Amino acid sequence: MVEVEAFHTDSHPVHPVGSLHQVLAALQDPARLEMVRRLRNAGAPLQCSALYDGINKSTATHHFKILREAGLLERLVLGGLTHQRLRAEEVDEALPGLLASVVEGANREAAR
Amino acid sequence: MVEVEAFHTDSHPVHPVGSLHQVLAALQDPARLEMVRRLRNAGAPLQCSALYDGINKSTATHHFKILREAGLLERLVLGGLTHQRLRAEEVDEALPGLLASVVEGANREAAR
Repeated sequence: MVEVEAFHTDSHPVHPVGSLHQVLAALQDPARLEMVRRLRNAGAPLQCSALYDGINKSTATHHFKILREAGLLERLVLGGLTHQRLRAEEVDEALPGLLASVVEGANREAAR
Repeated sequence: MVEVEAFHTDSHPVHPVGSLHQVLAALQDPARLEMVRRLRNAGAPLQCSALYDGINKSTATHHFKILREAGLLERLVLGGLTHQRLRAEEVDEALPGLLASVVEGANREAAR
């Protein structure tokens, strides 16, 4: 119950899915691609800290911002903790097949 | 006959399809995305000059190089004229669905 009530975006605005150029520019960075890959594979919002390794928090925050501005992510507070949600349905509607093919490729590279 | 004989790459090497990061970085530039879009839609090699508007030849050459290095394009000489070929089969094999979804999105934006 508490979780459901908290499942709202806070003051960070939710952006519409950007242009194809903006979405590709957001995805082409390896750290951001990894964030999107983890969220897509999880199929649920994840805490920020679960989305990266080897970069510091302020760098991660910068990457989250770029992904949010491209309309790929949404920031949520769940149980008092900041999470990121992949806007998979919205992106799939705007750019059918793109997330699936990108994450499939990223998963294959991660498995090597 | 002459055309078939000339259908060989010249001294410019053909690169294997790059990492997902490299391919996305190549595609995220609007001028390069447009080159790929035109080639995919044509379904055949095209002369370089048919692949861009509004940029000069040396800028276009720079973009062709980045696309070639990512394994997306191949340079061919056909009838004495330089053409670019989209390596669609090779890219589709390495990253299934990516080109289709990217070009579909680019076509929709171009139609607006």
